Amino acid sequence: MTLPKNLEVARKAKLQPLDEIAAEIGIGEHLLEPYGEGVAKIKLDAIEELSGRPKAKYVVVSAITPTPLGEGKTTTTVGLGQAFKHIGKTATVAVRQASMGPVFGIKGGAAGGGYSQVVPMEALNLHLTGDIHAVTEAHNQLAAMIDNHLYQGNALDLEAHSISWRRVMDVNDRALRNIVAGLGARTDGVPRQTGFDITAASEAMAILALSTSLQDMRSRFGRIVIGTDADGNPVTAEELKAAGVMTVIMKEAIKPNLMQTLENTPALVHAGPFGNIATGNSSVVADLIGIRGGDFLITEAGFGADMGAERFFNIKCRYSGLEPDAAVLVATVRALKAHSGRYEVRAGKPLPEELLRENPDDVYAGAANLRKQIENIRLHGVSPVVAINAFPTDHESEYDVIREIAEEMGARVAVCNHFSEGGTGAVELAEAVAEAAEEQTEFEFLTPTERPCAKR
Amino acid sequence: MTLPKNLEVARKAKLQPLDEIAAEIGIGEHLLEPYGEGVAKIKLDAIEELSGRPKAKYVVVSAITPTPLGEGKTTTTVGLGQAFKHIGKTATVAVRQASMGPVFGIKGGAAGGGYSQVVPMEALNLHLTGDIHAVTEAHNQLAAMIDNHLYQGNALDLEAHSISWRRVMDVNDRALRNIVAGLGARTDGVPRQTGFDITAASEAMAILALSTSLQDMRSRFGRIVIGTDADGNPVTAEELKAAGVMTVIMKEAIKPNLMQTLENTPALVHAGPFGNIATGNSSVVADLIGIRGGDFLITEAGFGADMGAERFFNIKCRYSGLEPDAAVLVATVRALKAHSGRYEVRAGKPLPEELLRENPDDVYAGAANLRKQIENIRLHGVSPVVAINAFPTDHESEYDVIREIAEEMGARVAVCNHFSEGGTGAVELAEAVAEAAEEQTEFEFLTPTERPCAKR
Amino acid sequence: MTLPKNLEVARKAKLQPLDEIAAEIGIGEHLLEPYGEGVAKIKLDAIEELSGRPKAKYVVVSAITPTPLGEGKTTTTVGLGQAFKHIGKTATVAVRQASMGPVFGIKGGAAGGGYSQVVPMEALNLHLTGDIHAVTEAHNQLAAMIDNHLYQGNALDLEAHSISWRRVMDVNDRALRNIVAGLGARTDGVPRQTGFDITAASEAMAILALSTSLQDMRSRFGRIVIGTDADGNPVTAEELKAAGVMTVIMKEAIKPNLMQTLENTPALVHAGPFGNIATGNSSVVADLIGIRGGDFLITEAGFGADMGAERFFNIKCRYSGLEPDAAVLVATVRALKAHSGRYEVRAGKPLPEELLRENPDDVYAGAANLRKQIENIRLHGVSPVVAINAFPTDHESEYDVIREIAEEMGARVAVCNHFSEGGTGAVELAEAVAEAAEEQTEFEFLTPTERPCAKR
Amino acid sequence: MTLPKNLEVARKAKLQPLDEIAAEIGIGEHLLEPYGEGVAKIKLDAIEELSGRPKAKYVVVSAITPTPLGEGKTTTTVGLGQAFKHIGKTATVAVRQASMGPVFGIKGGAAGGGYSQVVPMEALNLHLTGDIHAVTEAHNQLAAMIDNHLYQGNALDLEAHSISWRRVMDVNDRALRNIVAGLGARTDGVPRQTGFDITAASEAMAILALSTSLQDMRSRFGRIVIGTDADGNPVTAEELKAAGVMTVIMKEAIKPNLMQTLENTPALVHAGPFGNIATGNSSVVADLIGIRGGDFLITEAGFGADMGAERFFNIKCRYSGLEPDAAVLVATVRALKAHSGRYEVRAGKPLPEELLRENPDDVYAGAANLRKQIENIRLHGVSPVVAINAFPTDHESEYDVIREIAEEMGARVAVCNHFSEGGTGAVELAEAVAEAAEEQTEFEFLTPTERPCAKR
Repeated sequence: MTLPKNLEVARKAKLQPLDEIAAEIGIGEHLLEPYGEGVAKIKLDAIEELSGRPKAKYVVVSAITPTPLGEGKTTTTVGLGQAFKHIGKTATVAVRQASMGPVFGIKGGAAGGGYSQVVPMEALNLHLTGDIHAVTEAHNQLAAMIDNHLYQGNALDLEAHSISWRRVMDVNDRALRNIVAGLGARTDGVPRQTGFDITAASEAMAILALSTSLQDMRSRFGRIVIGTDADGNPVTAEELKAAGVMTVIMKEAIKPNLMQTLENTPALVHAGPFGNIATGNSSVVADLIGIRGGDFLITEAGFGADMGAERFFNIKCRYSGLEPDAAVLVATVRALKAHSGRYEVRAGKPLPEELLRENPDDVYAGAANLRKQIENIRLHGVSPVVAINAFPTDHESEYDVIREIAEEMGARVAVCNHFSEGGTGAVELAEAVAEAAEEQTEFEFLTPTERPCAKR
Repeated sequence: MTLPKNLEVARKAKLQPLDEIAAEIGIGEHLLEPYGEGVAKIKLDAIEELSGRPKAKYVVVSAITPTPLGEGKTTTTVGLGQAFKHIGKTATVAVRQASMGPVFGIKGGAAGGGYSQVVPMEALNLHLTGDIHAVTEAHNQLAAMIDNHLYQGNALDLEAHSISWRRVMDVNDRALRNIVAGLGARTDGVPRQTGFDITAASEAMAILALSTSLQDMRSRFGRIVIGTDADGNPVTAEELKAAGVMTVIMKEAIKPNLMQTLENTPALVHAGPFGNIATGNSSVVADLIGIRGGDFLITEAGFGADMGAERFFNIKCRYSGLEPDAAVLVATVRALKAHSGRYEVRAGKPLPEELLRENPDDVYAGAANLRKQIENIRLHGVSPVVAINAFPTDHESEYDVIREIAEEMGARVAVCNHFSEGGTGAVELAEAVAEAAEEQTEFEFLTPTERPCAKR
Repeated sequence: MTLPKNLEVARKAKLQPLDEIAAEIGIGEHLLEPYGEGVAKIKLDAIEELSGRPKAKYVVVSAITPTPLGEGKTTTTVGLGQAFKHIGKTATVAVRQASMGPVFGIKGGAAGGGYSQVVPMEALNLHLTGDIHAVTEAHNQLAAMIDNHLYQGNALDLEAHSISWRRVMDVNDRALRNIVAGLGARTDGVPRQTGFDITAASEAMAILALSTSLQDMRSRFGRIVIGTDADGNPVTAEELKAAGVMTVIMKEAIKPNLMQTLENTPALVHAGPFGNIATGNSSVVADLIGIRGGDFLITEAGFGADMGAERFFNIKCRYSGLEPDAAVLVATVRALKAHSGRYEVRAGKPLPEELLRENPDDVYAGAANLRKQIENIRLHGVSPVVAINAFPTDHESEYDVIREIAEEMGARVAVCNHFSEGGTGAVELAEAVAEAAEEQTEFEFLTPTERPCAKR
Repeated sequence: MTLPKNLEVARKAKLQPLDEIAAEIGIGEHLLEPYGEGVAKIKLDAIEELSGRPKAKYVVVSAITPTPLGEGKTTTTVGLGQAFKHIGKTATVAVRQASMGPVFGIKGGAAGGGYSQVVPMEALNLHLTGDIHAVTEAHNQLAAMIDNHLYQGNALDLEAHSISWRRVMDVNDRALRNIVAGLGARTDGVPRQTGFDITAASEAMAILALSTSLQDMRSRFGRIVIGTDADGNPVTAEELKAAGVMTVIMKEAIKPNLMQTLENTPALVHAGPFGNIATGNSSVVADLIGIRGGDFLITEAGFGADMGAERFFNIKCRYSGLEPDAAVLVATVRALKAHSGRYEVRAGKPLPEELLRENPDDVYAGAANLRKQIENIRLHGVSPVVAINAFPTDHESEYDVIREIAEEMGARVAVCNHFSEGGTGAVELAEAVAEAAEEQTEFEFLTPTERPCAKR
């Protein structure tokens, strides 16, 4: 069996006109701003306008702790979104934007894969509507204002070594990680050690993802602490008069982007904070719009459930006011085997052959990770569903192990083939999710001492 | 008399639907890609599709040597474009995109001014369709590949001190002008002195402006020389395998942006190389499309005629194959007075009061600059028209001096009030330009030794 | 009671001609090279020439763990040396050279204090015979050869980030701790992060202190590892052809310097490695000469007994082949009080008043440190003698506590007043040391697992 | 004919006891401080004590413009000093100390050569009495105090970019020429671009050479301008309280060093400022002592006569109050040939063979340089003597050319063989110098507009 190539599949996609996609989720043309082909921004007025419509069930997609293999979180999010149509339900998916740095590095795109992709894939993987560039620009504008403040006499008595606001770029550029800036003549600024991070790690990106309105974003920018003064008092972007400028630069970026999946399911693509360094969740505003879109809103939380999902529950939901009805935990046979600790798996290297042989014992050993992640989700009072993202090299005996463990932990489970089959491949998952979402559960935030990380 | 505020005027503008604007210049909807409100990209297929339409008269707008006062080149370009409608002719204007760095610095926007602006002004002055961000990204991708090449063992034996490809950012950030990069651990690259320029100074921006097609841009990227090897041989972006990546990043950026003026004259806004460091002219592809748009195509050349216009004649026209029919030289009474050398004029400082008093002698003294620029234009066989951009503080006796000199040099001349009156204020200029464009002239490139700079 | 000022006392000193001092320890004029007034270098031929003379008892002076107060190790070494004359014995003292950096910083000189100083004090505290400058020069010559090797094509494939050989300077200069060097044009070298240490921390200084001959020093220089090549193999100074040059630069520095105490006791002053970063002991060659000088050779080991004395026993003695007969542990009432942990004592700040009140309990609490240091010395089979360096603010009840603990641990103890009284103030100590040195003990090196630090 | 090797000759030297050498020039033992073998410092009291003795004739040795070949200025100075004994006169020579950097670089030693050397040669070429190390230490102490001043709050409002006081090291270390210092944590100082020069270029070295007393040196240190404050006012070492510390560090360095030549002529060796960057002359205090030493004091001025000699006349003599009686201009046949411009001569490369063939024409062509230098000396009213430093490859016809030109310019001339023959080889020169010194001349300083450089 040969797996479909992402780009080939994506290029063959039949896109539906975006105004029709928008109409499906209740968004009129007056709320749309088209951006090239197959992409539009949605005006934030939509939040208010749609507020009378019924709320969708809110489903978060997370995963076991990531391995270099990739478990397929985005692909499963898209596949699940597509599957609902096959069981007579409407759904919207919400995912993060791609960072261009890793696209040209080793990671590959962020559009999903196989027959479960958001399209047009190239738009998503390149500039899209320029939101990431706007974050870069806003972030660096503040950085320039900080260094200019030092240069202009430092009225705020900013302690140069305390400055934690670096610069960002959406390029994988190791040579910029640590620099000495401000060299040259007197008019070239004040020399100082600093460096660049990738834009996805910018606090401005995290703020974009968490803001509920332009005003909220403006005030969050103002509260950014960029360092301390000589007495150790925090100095904010507001004091540097940078928050207004940053907001102007990002006034378009705050509008969520509407696209579609290969099967024309509406897809909201907005904000791209990395899960290892930031909140790892797409934007609050996208979810506030998508939650009025139909029966289900499927939103993705980056990294493992103890990273992305925990931040989804305790940070994103706290700000959005939305409560999740179910949580999907993506797992693969080979990733669980890798979690057994018995194999050395390295990004960019071919998989060890033994890892592909039938071996339910290894799956069992590695499933300790899965158990803990199910437990983490239960801690928040949310119904877990384990999605086994199927690979041609899997064996039925190995699925049985996962099923056994999931049931033991009281979680639903489904084997999915959305990569090779699209939405039909995830029908079993969609049904499990629909059932889980119907359960009477009580979502709750956890206090710091109640969180999984505190219990470890 | 109070001058209108740019932002106020711009916000009151009544935009015509862009597809109607496009239709006026022969561009069908299938060639348009809308980008937010009031902006669309034009597919490059337009060049071929429109090739059967008659060619417009091609008019370049340049100026005397710039002073800190600003002479109003863009405003005059826009005003002239608007004026043709008032004399029964159709016209298109072509201008450069704004650089965000200076927008948040001291320079102010690039949309023109008063009643002669391109709108929506905020879109133009901020991200527009992200072309400048794409240039930043492509430029820095090459920079990252250079440093990564050094890090990965330097197979091309690149001499680190010879590397002339710096990085760029569209932010005015003095602290990045001179940096030491590559500090930190071994995996953080190879330490080296380098720095950032503003994106408008990028060679990638100059290439964007000069390319005639995507393929041409790809091959120009490949020919970029980034430094030399240890034997002094040039090393190109092609050898670093960067040209393809840069092209992918800029495949949307090469499409010109369609906007309109306050009076709904079609405006092509594309590429923004600075005239003091690069070619200073908007893109060749925009002109290749605009030249089929109607009776006149008015294109702007940055800086003084000896900078922007000379590059227009000898570089841009050489690549586009287009030949100018007339050249407008913008001058102001106060700038000519400043050229007398009798006043100290400083950007951001109030004007010396004496400079505003009636004083035709000063105008006469400063007009040496105007004479030389007229002469420069004549060297290329093009008909010059002097546009006196009127200010409330001017005096008729001062205009007389300019008229006298222009006539003596055989140039047409017109006083213009397009800033306060829009197109009607530039009718006299439009008529003079129309006459000049009818003259039987023979445009010619100059060999290096024939150019004005060689004669000085 | 007013304590004498060091400089005043030192300037009133009556120096005995150095040839007479030398003669007392068996060194003829042909072995002396005078260097300014009151200082001479001793040729290394002395080691061989004196080898037939009887060996002196070998006494090391160390201390409890240092506090910011200073316990008076050097002063006690000098005072003890002076005291032997008063009990009819001859003695030589061996101390380290001063580092100029701290002299102009906060630490003060290294000549001892009060009536127990080595003179001429200013010579000792400034350049003396230039040995430290020679170390600086040799160290930096190697550093320059490393960077020049990188510049000249790096034939040894040296990995730049692995280079651990920094530069040194005998100046307290915080701004040189971390630098980027090699900036500028191509001929200005290869950019790289590095920095400066104080010369006393140089491995070349440690080598000077441990070498037994010029040949030995030459071969130790050759074995210096300055970093690794790209495969991780160590690269040595020998491979860089630097060892010979370093030896030429330090061929005079290896000769010990002869001075005298205020009471004309011969004093060998040679090498100055810091105890916190290096061996903390004066040179092996000085001790190999001094050991033939008379009845006692008193040598000082920097820092607490667990630092300087342990290195004396296990490193210096291992190379010199000499075996100590007794070890003096200097303690003060106030330092033991500080070790109680009940006071905050800060260098450069006045002492807390309560610390000066009669309080034997605090002394008792802090004496845990003293107990452990006595135990450490006993581990090597050496007889410990506790020297209580008296201060006017001490109380008899506090001395009693120290005496009680020392006796309990089986150590001799003596209260000393050599600071205010010179040699006569340390007669009790000299007698205790003489007795201890007569004990039948068996000195032994400890294997790494037997050492105090391993037992903690 | 084989030329003697410098080191071999030097090691066979029979040194006369230094107290006898000192006695010959009137210096009693109480004024001597021995430093190792064959070297002693002379106390500055000597200046006053010797003031009643008659003044020697004062002869400066300079040369034509230097070529990579070396003309032999120091060798001629030493050879001339040795020659006087052979004509029944006493003489003292005064030369500069060697810089260690170039010794280990390409330049070779500074002790003269062949049978005309100052000995012990190794002492002179290495540390000697540590004067250069003291300059390094004093210079860098001031540098550390500057950076510490910035760090401690910058009470003097020092403008960091204005700081012109770099650091120095007596090592040829290209990697230190341009650095960024002050990196690291807050306590590691204020980041800033700076660098190192070679110690011989230090202003402290120039001051050492020009001071007439310890007090004078102290006050000159105080007047050092290290940069400006924010208002552009100069900031001095005095304001940084560094002058006293620098003086303490250099209080021994100001005493001239006494050595001897291979023929036991007294040699004063003191201070080593480079002629290309500093005054290029040995110390004023050495000459103030040497001028009382007998019949002749021969002092050397570095670089060509238009550099070193002009500074000798206009700077050194202005401060010392001494007036020269004659000036020797060293020239060689091959250097004059090189000055013809007909050969490419490169340091470290073998000489072009044709340059060694008999060719009086080339000598004639290159002698334009010699003419001008003679003229320069005459401008100061001093009698010039041309010393032709003979090489085995010279031809008599070539000497004739030099003789002819010298006579034409009214200068005495002598062929010298002191390299291979010692003092006897320079008897002819000594006689010419003695005659020249008897001439009635009137020495005069030149005003800036009268100087040769102003006339060029």
